[in-house]
Amino acid sequence: MTELRHRGAKDTDPTLQQQPSEDKGSDGELKVEKDGVSDSESKVDSGVPEVPVPADDTPEVLNKALSGLSSRWKNWWVRGILTLAMISFFFFIIYLGPMVLMMIVLCVQIKCFQEIITIGYSVYHSYHLPWFRTLSWYFLLCVNYFFYGETVTDYFFTLVQREEPLRILSKYHRFISFALYLTGFCMFVLSLVKKHYRLQFYMLSPKKTWEGFIGGFFATIVFGIMLSYVMAGCRYFVCPVEFNNDSNSFQVDCEPPELFQLQDYALPGILESVTGWTTVRLYPFQIHSIALSSFASIVGPFGGFFASGFKRAFKIKDFANTIPGHGGIMDRFDCQYLMATFVNVYIASFIRGPNPSKVIQQLLALRVDQQLHIFNSLKAHLTEKGLLPALEEATA
Amino acid sequence: MTELRHRGAKDTDPTLQQQPSEDKGSDGELKVEKDGVSDSESKVDSGVPEVPVPADDTPEVLNKALSGLSSRWKNWWVRGILTLAMISFFFFIIYLGPMVLMMIVLCVQIKCFQEIITIGYSVYHSYHLPWFRTLSWYFLLCVNYFFYGETVTDYFFTLVQREEPLRILSKYHRFISFALYLTGFCMFVLSLVKKHYRLQFYMLSPKKTWEGFIGGFFATIVFGIMLSYVMAGCRYFVCPVEFNNDSNSFQVDCEPPELFQLQDYALPGILESVTGWTTVRLYPFQIHSIALSSFASIVGPFGGFFASGFKRAFKIKDFANTIPGHGGIMDRFDCQYLMATFVNVYIASFIRGPNPSKVIQQLLALRVDQQLHIFNSLKAHLTEKGLLPALEEATA
Repeated sequence: MTELRHRGAKDTDPTLQQQPSEDKGSDGELKVEKDGVSDSESKVDSGVPEVPVPADDTPEVLNKALSGLSSRWKNWWVRGILTLAMISFFFFIIYLGPMVLMMIVLCVQIKCFQEIITIGYSVYHSYHLPWFRTLSWYFLLCVNYFFYGETVTDYFFTLVQREEPLRILSKYHRFISFALYLTGFCMFVLSLVKKHYRLQFYMLSPKKTWEGFIGGFFATIVFGIMLSYVMAGCRYFVCPVEFNNDSNSFQVDCEPPELFQLQDYALPGILESVTGWTTVRLYPFQIHSIALSSFASIVGPFGGFFASGFKRAFKIKDFANTIPGHGGIMDRFDCQYLMATFVNVYIASFIRGPNPSKVIQQLLALRVDQQLHIFNSLKAHLTEKGLLPALEEATA
Repeated sequence: MTELRHRGAKDTDPTLQQQPSEDKGSDGELKVEKDGVSDSESKVDSGVPEVPVPADDTPEVLNKALSGLSSRWKNWWVRGILTLAMISFFFFIIYLGPMVLMMIVLCVQIKCFQEIITIGYSVYHSYHLPWFRTLSWYFLLCVNYFFYGETVTDYFFTLVQREEPLRILSKYHRFISFALYLTGFCMFVLSLVKKHYRLQFYMLSPKKTWEGFIGGFFATIVFGIMLSYVMAGCRYFVCPVEFNNDSNSFQVDCEPPELFQLQDYALPGILESVTGWTTVRLYPFQIHSIALSSFASIVGPFGGFFASGFKRAFKIKDFANTIPGHGGIMDRFDCQYLMATFVNVYIASFIRGPNPSKVIQQLLALRVDQQLHIFNSLKAHLTEKGLLPALEEATA
């Protein structure tokens, strides 16, 4: 360990030079390079760029007290004293109670993340990823909302139900998490595209234009409404796939749910005056199809942009050569992964309600006394709502 | 697009050389490099190594039929014909039914993954990551078990309950997923360490020995049993933290659950003859502490090995210089992330049963008719078990 530390310490030799930074985001950052190599191009080519070695910040008082010792023993004492300090600190935190303990865990997490992205930044900064640090912190926020969201809702259940904004954050937890991640992903891809416009404009598919983008948007919406009308009429597309235990095979048959039953909708005033119709007969799913089509045409392409960035980074034209003229399967499915995830989250958040048969499964997994307790709570709840005749009282 | 394809095609020029591969894993792989650069060291240093360009495999019959056309029009026709072929193929798949559709989705996913890891392999192979492809496929398996596990259990619920091995795969889904991921992670770290032993042995902390490892294992177990005895006696450590709505503060107070109530355990014969005791009084949690201690001392260090590998890759000694003599916070917490995840999964899988208050929350989120339906099912179930007096019949 001592040897390692010595070697590391030697790296901070006095020939280090500070380079003027190229980008406004990096003020306050110490950018250190060895051997006077300062051209950022040569850094990109030389594998992993150097990570600046932080200065030794042992407190002055410790340095003074230990000045008589050899470097090896001095290091041993510094380590020992700080170890005791940390242990005492953590005992103190535990003494202060769970709220402080949770805060310290969050602080440790944030500090660890900061240490890692500082290293990442000094490496990837040279690859011209301009929003690297901002996006890194943004993704930490997303991850914390996603992972703590459900736990916090459990702890604060009644509080969350009382406050409308909290209730929405909790109810649409999955969709909001997805939207947050997606925004970060699109910002990342845009940051690549921005640099890209500047440096390698010719590599961007020259046939992608704003006219095409806007035309594609409307065409997708209209086509989506029409196609969902056709498909909503087929059992095959609207019924859940269910495994039939008797025949040991999958079945697709059901009474179509409301979502796939034609309903009359009143037209807004403007459309009424244009078309002369007061109502229009639609499947409710056709309205959802507008959301899905909009995502497909506005956000979907970012999957393709990302794939282009990936291919550019690896200096390849296509992922593979599986389909002549098209490239690999991945070249055809680059936007589908984003779209499939969106459809899954959209259905779970806005279409599918809670699943009663899953609740029954969970109920039956409980202990019998817990089942009885829930039975009585539910009975009281339903009786209070007037949905159960107060049978016992009536017959008493 | 045409320009791009042309440029790509030109890259496969006749000066390309095939290099003899260094490793048995890569037979059958075409490894192509430009400008005769063949030294693997220079490849590591030149940023991203070249990815081999796959050969043009347009079917011969298409090439012949289109031989009279210019390259641009030929490409247009190949693309068009294959587009129609793909569309027809997907219509045919839809016609074949949901089971085939699911299989094709799985196939597309596997093929896309194969295309990406082929690119990754040709790049990272040069960094001497020997098990790259094996581990990549292994992680695909883990991800599929983790993500499809729950969905498949829903579809095949009765089938899964009937077959004991399936029931275990489903019941301990979270723990098994974690164990699978963890095995892959440890294999990855071991693959780094193996190379590491060969090339840079001196960088591995020289003070880590087998004696220390084995001694540490037993010391951790004994210390864990003792510490958990002390801590199990304090409400502060055994009661769940609960938010009290009346006082708007956190509370830690409860009647300790069974897990933290002393119980008599019969000692196994061998220990009985040694100690002379027939029973021993323990908190049940002390038995769980053995599992936690074992993980901490056997698998926990892999978090530290991984952090060492990370630091070595970025040529840094410590993550930061936050704590004098220790490095960054991350240097002290490198094993904690693995350990914290294990504790979470262990508690969820083996200690905490299903949460009744969460089931109630889900029940109340259902539609009223669904609540009534569940109420009646539960009533029938409990009556059948003799836990509810058949009141209505008795009074009728």
